[in-house]
Amino acid sequence: MVINRTEIEIRYQETDQMGVVYHANYLVWFEIGRTKLIEQLGFKYAEMEQDGVVSPVIDLQITYKKPARYGNTVIIETWLEKYDGIRTTYKYRVVDEKGDVYVTGASDHVIVDHKTFRPLRLRKVHPKWHEAYQRLVSKEG
Amino acid sequence: MVINRTEIEIRYQETDQMGVVYHANYLVWFEIGRTKLIEQLGFKYAEMEQDGVVSPVIDLQITYKKPARYGNTVIIETWLEKYDGIRTTYKYRVVDEKGDVYVTGASDHVIVDHKTFRPLRLRKVHPKWHEAYQRLVSKEG
Amino acid sequence: MVINRTEIEIRYQETDQMGVVYHANYLVWFEIGRTKLIEQLGFKYAEMEQDGVVSPVIDLQITYKKPARYGNTVIIETWLEKYDGIRTTYKYRVVDEKGDVYVTGASDHVIVDHKTFRPLRLRKVHPKWHEAYQRLVSKEG
Amino acid sequence: MVINRTEIEIRYQETDQMGVVYHANYLVWFEIGRTKLIEQLGFKYAEMEQDGVVSPVIDLQITYKKPARYGNTVIIETWLEKYDGIRTTYKYRVVDEKGDVYVTGASDHVIVDHKTFRPLRLRKVHPKWHEAYQRLVSKEG
Repeated sequence: MVINRTEIEIRYQETDQMGVVYHANYLVWFEIGRTKLIEQLGFKYAEMEQDGVVSPVIDLQITYKKPARYGNTVIIETWLEKYDGIRTTYKYRVVDEKGDVYVTGASDHVIVDHKTFRPLRLRKVHPKWHEAYQRLVSKEG
Repeated sequence: MVINRTEIEIRYQETDQMGVVYHANYLVWFEIGRTKLIEQLGFKYAEMEQDGVVSPVIDLQITYKKPARYGNTVIIETWLEKYDGIRTTYKYRVVDEKGDVYVTGASDHVIVDHKTFRPLRLRKVHPKWHEAYQRLVSKEG
Repeated sequence: MVINRTEIEIRYQETDQMGVVYHANYLVWFEIGRTKLIEQLGFKYAEMEQDGVVSPVIDLQITYKKPARYGNTVIIETWLEKYDGIRTTYKYRVVDEKGDVYVTGASDHVIVDHKTFRPLRLRKVHPKWHEAYQRLVSKEG
Repeated sequence: MVINRTEIEIRYQETDQMGVVYHANYLVWFEIGRTKLIEQLGFKYAEMEQDGVVSPVIDLQITYKKPARYGNTVIIETWLEKYDGIRTTYKYRVVDEKGDVYVTGASDHVIVDHKTFRPLRLRKVHPKWHEAYQRLVSKEG
């Protein structure tokens, strides 16, 4: 299984008055992990957008296990969990070097036309990307 | 059932280059809805914090149905779904005046000491709040 | 002088671990004040954007006098300071009901084509808006 | 002169519907640059906070020259401009590899007790830090 591991240095701006990372910011880190996994697989999300295609989140789940704090360095682990040609599921874990788990999560995405938000098929828009994702999920089956 | 309905004027800062509200920002709106529901029930989250008690999210789920855009006014509907003395579940819907649904979601919370993050019981920390929540969920049973 | 006064309820997400509003968030409030002033004058920023025109900040100055905190309600006061047909200067004060001043600031804006970022003249793009701004600054002279 | 140069990969979340980095986010990058400069000088902002001392911004100025976009990698350059024992001024430039300048800015800071927000003297709180800053500004005189 291909797992992208990207280091995140926690920003002061990401904390709240609870003294920990504000809970919505982990979604930003998930996005960073996703982008890095896509790059690791040889693609670039920014280029897809230049072709008029965007990939919105349609469902997201997150479990908070331990609060991350300013001054910590954490690692966001991201992998492809499912892909059926229409819907892609990524999974995430935020951990530190000692193996402590801060959050786990999953997000489902589709691809749509950036103007109309009408669904598109990755196979037609970007066949190589489609093939790479199919290979990845079949290996993992 | 008590449902808080709070209007949100979408901020320019909340959009991203997809031309829609960035997906993590709905979690901020959920928090606003939660705070307003708590106020509607006669309590104040800010006061709880002054007593050294915080209420972190421990689980959150969100489904994105339709993208909200700058210039839209939306309503965040929030209600208490479950409360068992330890864990509280809130549910949310972001809708507009025409009844269109943008997102739905749920979040689970506990209360903890703001320094140690050790779990506390609402019944001990804030008995009236506990009673109000118990009444609410039993009515809904 | 036309001064827009818009109430802001501080969001938990806007705080940082210093226990106060994170300093960059005042820029978001300035933007809200600016939008509301524009509405008060009879225009809508969102509509300008639909015509392919955007109004980026080109210079901004902010002085922090007193930290705002979660639970506070503050008022953002916004007014037009200067307009010369090309550059518009807005000024801001964040105050509370007692008259305490939290921050003061100013921002300069131009209008540009949203694709090329080439400068445009408000007089050509939106003559009524131009006239309203000219009237406002001459009155104040 | 000691100039810290820190690379920033632009986050999707940092864009707005203008298709560029939202203007308030440069303040977050300034903060990252400042933190990195402090580390380069041998200190840690996080540790200062653990001693109950925080360093709020009291004045900030920023000039926007060219919009940064998602997919760009930029460099935030940060240096100490002034230090008089009470007030510290940092300056910033956001550039890319080709030498294009996106924004320039400056921020003034004091140090205060994190509870009372009463001013403190760096010389008393952290003498080594004070000496390092004095050396840096005298060299530059």
